[in-house]
Amino acid sequence: MTKQKNKDSKMTGLPPGTLIHVGERKIENAKITVINHNKEECHEINIKDIGDCFPFDKNSSVTWINIDGIHNSEIIENIGKHLNLHPLLLEDIMNTHQRPKMEDYGDYIFMVLKMLYHNAEQDKLEIEQVSLILGSNYVISFQEKEGDVFNPVRERIRKGKGKVRKIGASYLAYTLIDAIIDHYFVLLEGTGDKIEELEEELVTQPIPKTLQAIHNLKREMIYLRKSVWPLREAISGLEKTESTLIEESVDMYLRDVYDHTIQVIDSIETFRDMISGMLDIYLSSISNKMNEVMKVLTIIATIFIPLTFIAGIYGMNFVYIPELQWRWGYFATLFVMAVLGIIMLLYFRKKKWL
Amino acid sequence: MTKQKNKDSKMTGLPPGTLIHVGERKIENAKITVINHNKEECHEINIKDIGDCFPFDKNSSVTWINIDGIHNSEIIENIGKHLNLHPLLLEDIMNTHQRPKMEDYGDYIFMVLKMLYHNAEQDKLEIEQVSLILGSNYVISFQEKEGDVFNPVRERIRKGKGKVRKIGASYLAYTLIDAIIDHYFVLLEGTGDKIEELEEELVTQPIPKTLQAIHNLKREMIYLRKSVWPLREAISGLEKTESTLIEESVDMYLRDVYDHTIQVIDSIETFRDMISGMLDIYLSSISNKMNEVMKVLTIIATIFIPLTFIAGIYGMNFVYIPELQWRWGYFATLFVMAVLGIIMLLYFRKKKWL
Amino acid sequence: MTKQKNKDSKMTGLPPGTLIHVGERKIENAKITVINHNKEECHEINIKDIGDCFPFDKNSSVTWINIDGIHNSEIIENIGKHLNLHPLLLEDIMNTHQRPKMEDYGDYIFMVLKMLYHNAEQDKLEIEQVSLILGSNYVISFQEKEGDVFNPVRERIRKGKGKVRKIGASYLAYTLIDAIIDHYFVLLEGTGDKIEELEEELVTQPIPKTLQAIHNLKREMIYLRKSVWPLREAISGLEKTESTLIEESVDMYLRDVYDHTIQVIDSIETFRDMISGMLDIYLSSISNKMNEVMKVLTIIATIFIPLTFIAGIYGMNFVYIPELQWRWGYFATLFVMAVLGIIMLLYFRKKKWL
Amino acid sequence: MTKQKNKDSKMTGLPPGTLIHVGERKIENAKITVINHNKEECHEINIKDIGDCFPFDKNSSVTWINIDGIHNSEIIENIGKHLNLHPLLLEDIMNTHQRPKMEDYGDYIFMVLKMLYHNAEQDKLEIEQVSLILGSNYVISFQEKEGDVFNPVRERIRKGKGKVRKIGASYLAYTLIDAIIDHYFVLLEGTGDKIEELEEELVTQPIPKTLQAIHNLKREMIYLRKSVWPLREAISGLEKTESTLIEESVDMYLRDVYDHTIQVIDSIETFRDMISGMLDIYLSSISNKMNEVMKVLTIIATIFIPLTFIAGIYGMNFVYIPELQWRWGYFATLFVMAVLGIIMLLYFRKKKWL
Amino acid sequence: MTKQKNKDSKMTGLPPGTLIHVGERKIENAKITVINHNKEECHEINIKDIGDCFPFDKNSSVTWINIDGIHNSEIIENIGKHLNLHPLLLEDIMNTHQRPKMEDYGDYIFMVLKMLYHNAEQDKLEIEQVSLILGSNYVISFQEKEGDVFNPVRERIRKGKGKVRKIGASYLAYTLIDAIIDHYFVLLEGTGDKIEELEEELVTQPIPKTLQAIHNLKREMIYLRKSVWPLREAISGLEKTESTLIEESVDMYLRDVYDHTIQVIDSIETFRDMISGMLDIYLSSISNKMNEVMKVLTIIATIFIPLTFIAGIYGMNFVYIPELQWRWGYFATLFVMAVLGIIMLLYFRKKKWL
Repeated sequence: MTKQKNKDSKMTGLPPGTLIHVGERKIENAKITVINHNKEECHEINIKDIGDCFPFDKNSSVTWINIDGIHNSEIIENIGKHLNLHPLLLEDIMNTHQRPKMEDYGDYIFMVLKMLYHNAEQDKLEIEQVSLILGSNYVISFQEKEGDVFNPVRERIRKGKGKVRKIGASYLAYTLIDAIIDHYFVLLEGTGDKIEELEEELVTQPIPKTLQAIHNLKREMIYLRKSVWPLREAISGLEKTESTLIEESVDMYLRDVYDHTIQVIDSIETFRDMISGMLDIYLSSISNKMNEVMKVLTIIATIFIPLTFIAGIYGMNFVYIPELQWRWGYFATLFVMAVLGIIMLLYFRKKKWL
Repeated sequence: MTKQKNKDSKMTGLPPGTLIHVGERKIENAKITVINHNKEECHEINIKDIGDCFPFDKNSSVTWINIDGIHNSEIIENIGKHLNLHPLLLEDIMNTHQRPKMEDYGDYIFMVLKMLYHNAEQDKLEIEQVSLILGSNYVISFQEKEGDVFNPVRERIRKGKGKVRKIGASYLAYTLIDAIIDHYFVLLEGTGDKIEELEEELVTQPIPKTLQAIHNLKREMIYLRKSVWPLREAISGLEKTESTLIEESVDMYLRDVYDHTIQVIDSIETFRDMISGMLDIYLSSISNKMNEVMKVLTIIATIFIPLTFIAGIYGMNFVYIPELQWRWGYFATLFVMAVLGIIMLLYFRKKKWL
Repeated sequence: MTKQKNKDSKMTGLPPGTLIHVGERKIENAKITVINHNKEECHEINIKDIGDCFPFDKNSSVTWINIDGIHNSEIIENIGKHLNLHPLLLEDIMNTHQRPKMEDYGDYIFMVLKMLYHNAEQDKLEIEQVSLILGSNYVISFQEKEGDVFNPVRERIRKGKGKVRKIGASYLAYTLIDAIIDHYFVLLEGTGDKIEELEEELVTQPIPKTLQAIHNLKREMIYLRKSVWPLREAISGLEKTESTLIEESVDMYLRDVYDHTIQVIDSIETFRDMISGMLDIYLSSISNKMNEVMKVLTIIATIFIPLTFIAGIYGMNFVYIPELQWRWGYFATLFVMAVLGIIMLLYFRKKKWL
Repeated sequence: MTKQKNKDSKMTGLPPGTLIHVGERKIENAKITVINHNKEECHEINIKDIGDCFPFDKNSSVTWINIDGIHNSEIIENIGKHLNLHPLLLEDIMNTHQRPKMEDYGDYIFMVLKMLYHNAEQDKLEIEQVSLILGSNYVISFQEKEGDVFNPVRERIRKGKGKVRKIGASYLAYTLIDAIIDHYFVLLEGTGDKIEELEEELVTQPIPKTLQAIHNLKREMIYLRKSVWPLREAISGLEKTESTLIEESVDMYLRDVYDHTIQVIDSIETFRDMISGMLDIYLSSISNKMNEVMKVLTIIATIFIPLTFIAGIYGMNFVYIPELQWRWGYFATLFVMAVLGIIMLLYFRKKKWL
Repeated sequence: MTKQKNKDSKMTGLPPGTLIHVGERKIENAKITVINHNKEECHEINIKDIGDCFPFDKNSSVTWINIDGIHNSEIIENIGKHLNLHPLLLEDIMNTHQRPKMEDYGDYIFMVLKMLYHNAEQDKLEIEQVSLILGSNYVISFQEKEGDVFNPVRERIRKGKGKVRKIGASYLAYTLIDAIIDHYFVLLEGTGDKIEELEEELVTQPIPKTLQAIHNLKREMIYLRKSVWPLREAISGLEKTESTLIEESVDMYLRDVYDHTIQVIDSIETFRDMISGMLDIYLSSISNKMNEVMKVLTIIATIFIPLTFIAGIYGMNFVYIPELQWRWGYFATLFVMAVLGIIMLLYFRKKKWL
């Protein structure tokens, strides 16, 4: 997340459409995988140059080109030239600070999505931008690095499971979007677990570290929200577009994925509410603890300060203090002190401080 | 509520339309009940297999099939095949994390609702998903477990009370929805009672347990809200749909149930406002108590510290302290101390600390 | 307000349209008053049974039937039968937990409004539901108890003041709505007075009772809001309806009453803002007072603790303490103490604690 | 502002359209000024009765009638009769608690605006209601008292500066509205100045008086907001109306005045944000100061309490305390005390309390 | 920002369309630069009077006139006369308190934008108003002072890089808008950096200066927001306008710049959320620190006050205190004191205060 700060400025002053990678470089070399499939068969190759892959495009089967690594402007440019893509679209692919969006360019539909990982090692959220181009019989997906979210889809294509090889390119695009959004649920489960842990901690032992953890959670929610809210609009746009690129039978599936997005948003809002409730609890319990500390101090001080005063009285060196001469003066004084102390304790009990 | 966390991930990577039960399994074996009725008569049977029930479907009477238990994918799949239902719909029925929604599939209308129970034993909210399919002359309802919310409806059908046997399937669907939403009022009454109890507690004795109770209430409201808000849209959709499945005379009843939903939402929002007000009160009363504790400490310390100082003065062992030799020195000192103490007390009274 | 809790549940499980009174019973016996008037004359009778009144309905004059007391389902049912009203409408009349609303049933328009009283004895807000049915030449109003809000209207009809006897039934309905909304202003004036009193109290002497009063005010605003917000929509609906029941010349008056509703809403929102500002002030002034208490304690302790320490030093019983033998040791010590005390005081003055 | 409370109730129970002045009476006698102008000439007279002025109305020039003082129902009624105005409109003119609004009555357009003054003597905001009636060749303006906001417009008409004498009545109405809204900027400048002053005060010396000032500012913003928000809608309505009373060339000017209104709203919202930020700062700085006070107390107490204890030890009168007999016992004790004190100080420095 | 306060009032009372500079004068003399270019060539001149430049206007190439300094009403008026611009538009150009907006005047489109700089010397945000007029083959831009934001555009025109010389005036206008919005990203990067620094500071050492910095950041966000939110609407208006001044091929670029605006808004909202989270953290850590201070005080006082009391007891001068005569009385007392102290310490450890 912190990588954002010194990259955007690279863009300033450049003409629009200039291809410059904005964001962190997450992979060494870009990798291009092509899967060409129809109902009967499925071919899969890795290529170096986009030029190698396009004979695939000519037949009637569906081609899925996946590019891992978007920092290489040459590759992106080549793809753009081959498919006659708009320069602004190419710029968007390479700039990882896009909001999720859907743009209908007529011959193809362009989508930007955010893939969210929880980096277990550093215990922080990682965001990866995924761009999709849906054409008449091809889908091109751009990832920042190799990822495993699309692997199940790949498996299904290879094995011919589900409908992915029976319906056209728009269904393939849908399955990719669906895979990304399904992954959000995994992430939200993790967040839900953390929230429960923290709530337990809050009740048993609220320490500053807990506050820090709550704050981190809150930040994650801010980022998640930023990634998911615009997604809703994007998918809704996809569902409502009148583009012929989206087959009619896919509409129902898009409605389903839209429902999932709303579910994700609902969960995020619920978590936000719960986290802000936790902050309140934390602050109240800090106040409670301070109150308790104060009570201990007050009880001790209020009991002993008057007693010490009495002891001070009889520690004075006046030549004539009659009580000092009394045989039982000392014990009488101790008795008075004990009575005073007990009265104080009773007072505190009445006040429910004890 | 906490069950959500380790189930959703089961879905990840599976092709859409795969039938997998997501959620807690709340009943051992699924149970299918069929009630077939028209103005004249009413038959009721329990069946094992959905295949056994469909001769009912052929005549002109209304058939209500209720399935308790949705974890058995075979049963769900069979129903889907019999009625030619969309696979995504079946997936939704089995995934208990759906939002309330209404979907018009043309031949039938699909609704997801949330039934909310207050589990008295564990003193927590329980959510059960209820799915409804409304066809031309049948209604199919899916519950997670056997419940008693639909029992009054069953009774009415058996006894022929009300209009339920006079109007068609859409009226039956309406009565089921109405039964669920009526149950929300029972729940909200319970919440209202709790809020009043807590408000009384807050005034008499605010303790951390009260805070915990407020917080729990707040969480319940978050979940309630999540269940009811989308319901509004769903019912509004039902009311406005142009589907011929909804008889015209039922429209007025749907408007009524929509009004009830709004009433529920209003109450939830009111309760939320009141709960957040209670949190403010709690925090203020903690502050007030701390203030009171501080005052006691300050009064005691402020009175006795100077007096103890005076006693300390005359406890010094200087060879030449003239006052010590005075005949009435001791009593003069006591008098001065008393005067000082009284001045302090008057000062505190003036400050309204006493 | 607290009456809500054990009544709604009566409805659960009953078929829709069942006539059951939900709410508190505020009057012993229902009372029916009929006022029949046209430009020339005005008749007024009290009847027991609704059947007695309807010859009035046949001529061309306007009939206003007012029913005080809605707990008697027989009376409501009779009216329903006479006028052929929808059963859900009758149910709504008897259920006092309706939201304000407007429903156009074609032959008649149904409205639910909330009358708000300030119960001076118990110093709390009371809500009464008023239902209106506007037909072609009659208006039927249902109140929970006898009230004086409609008395001025009655007077005007009797005396033929204003336009009420010159325009038709829709103008009569308007005057009734106007009377209710005008009453809100009286209520808001009372609230405004209370707010000002409390603000003064806050400045002079913030005590927990003030907090309680603020909290009560806040709750009242929550209820007021709940009653008035939906009213806006209802009256707007009335204004925009294309029903022929509303005479054209009445439109301008409805616009006026709509303006008043907005004014009421504006005032409520303003009061809410002010009340939440008062809570902030209360909390800050508690903090301020605690700060002041702390300062007194700190000044006293910080001055006397070191002095007491010095006194303690010379109270030690070491055989060889040279100072103790000095002729002016005692006075020198007192002098040092005085200087120390003055330095402390100057320090506190510099810190602006004094 | 506080005058509102005992006036609205005057209206309750009266038939709509009754002319009663609601609000504070700000001027002794109403004053009517008529300015009749066209491109060539400009006549100006003061009249007592509205009947005297209307020969002006017959020619093709533009007539501006300004009435200062709206408490005289006779004058208002006369105007109403002369121009055949709707009784509700006249009621609105006399009731100073209207919201800003625009109503198109066909033959004329009615507007209510709020003029806001800062009363320098009492240092509070004053609100005056201004009503405008725009007819085909006349504008009538009603003010609560004589004001100087319209003086520049009067000057411009007299001197023929600007376009005011070249375009028709709608341009005159626009200049009056513009004059009022321009005055808001003056007011907001004052508020901006106050906010800056207070921010400086907050940083240097946060005292309860500052809090009071912030609170007053907040209240002023609440009232300003209430006056300006509905204005936006009113002016937008004026801009979008299809009434022929608004000359086409005036549209652009109305758009301009609409922009100004939005600017005013923007500023109010910005000020609100800033004021609420100031409250946060105030509360934090109170906390900070309390923290500082606590630290001083703790440092003093923590250093001297243990030392006093040591002194107390050697002040005991046991017959056998070996240290008391030591030659350097006293100095050793002083040394130990000094070392202890220094250790404490170092500890506090490490904790950054010093 | 603080300059706003004594300028707006200059406008009050003046006829609309009066040309008066409102705002701070940031440059000595206005400077006019004209760049005339087409696909083949590019001429650039500096002129004194606008009259000198317009032969450029007659040919088919695109002319960009940039005016630095808007305080000279003569220059503005001349331009207005030459191009027949609306007087209100000229007034808007000279009044630097405009909101960003887009107005379609038919023959030309007028836009107001805000350029935001971070003034490194004074460490504060600076706002400059930029107005653009887009005509059929010219663009006129007005800046408050010479700036470098447009320099890259100038360079591209000179060198013929990008499309700027190939497409018409609307593309030029787009590049200018794009340059301004791109600059926002630079600013937001700076803000992001500051937020991270402050978060680190908050964790390590929260001091009042940190609070001040958070507050300043919050204010900057308020101003940024005020500048950018209306921009969204303005650019959206530009995108959707049906004016023929916008070439069709530029539409896609405007959509892109609109996306950027949304991205900026998103970032601002995210920063606002983060800053408000920081305020919470600051307040909690102040509370935490106070709690810690209290604990130290309480531990010290609670341990030593009772011990000092015991010492006080045996410091009393009663003639008969048996313990004083005991041989090991002193050591026994010391032992008792040590045991008491240790018990206290164990108690505090149990309470987790240590």
